[in-house]
Amino acid sequence: MKLVIVGCGRVGAMAAVALSKDGHQVTVIDINRRAFDRLGPDFNGEMVLGNGIDEDVLRQAGIETADGFACLTNGDNRNIMAAQIAREIFKVPRVITRIYDPMRQDVYTELGLDTVCPTLSGARQIHTMLKG
Amino acid sequence: MKLVIVGCGRVGAMAAVALSKDGHQVTVIDINRRAFDRLGPDFNGEMVLGNGIDEDVLRQAGIETADGFACLTNGDNRNIMAAQIAREIFKVPRVITRIYDPMRQDVYTELGLDTVCPTLSGARQIHTMLKG
Repeated sequence: MKLVIVGCGRVGAMAAVALSKDGHQVTVIDINRRAFDRLGPDFNGEMVLGNGIDEDVLRQAGIETADGFACLTNGDNRNIMAAQIAREIFKVPRVITRIYDPMRQDVYTELGLDTVCPTLSGARQIHTMLKG
Repeated sequence: MKLVIVGCGRVGAMAAVALSKDGHQVTVIDINRRAFDRLGPDFNGEMVLGNGIDEDVLRQAGIETADGFACLTNGDNRNIMAAQIAREIFKVPRVITRIYDPMRQDVYTELGLDTVCPTLSGARQIHTMLKG
């Protein structure tokens, strides 16, 4: 599969490396060149320097033929924006968006969009572990 | 149970509210007074303003009789430090530490400590969802 990931933070980089190891064709976009250092030597995909809500940058990353797209920057609104562009303009079949704010996630889920909310899963995990 | 949580960010606040709703006696420590706003009106536990690696602050939060302790600040080292104090000095039976850096988590797990690594669980979740 051809996959595009926006945001090369810890989670983005780790997912990118794992997916490229699985044999997928992965392109990572980040606005900060140094973020790509997180990919390490095991990553054999592509890197595109630029803003993940810029359509030219997305085209350069191959979004027009992508099977999947993940928005993993640190900004919820940026992620939501990039996800909308991927879905509405480029018709990417599978779009996943990380959203830190659980209330924004509720709205987003209502709109039928796939989200990951680390806040919620983290709180649940802590809750379970503390109760033992 | 008596539970002490250090760090009233989104995850800390959400876990604190859920645990207090479950009937546990929860005290939250944060260095920033405004962080307590996240607890909202449903939280009926206590709040202590101060640094979670300060023993006096921890005593004020009731650590000496706590059954569980969770370190959820945004700094891995701060969390590790607070966890060590809770375990070694105050002998809290159950101590949970959030660590963002997976390499630090490895070391910490080797030391037999309970950790939560949102980086790792986030990357796994994205990986699974993108592969469909």
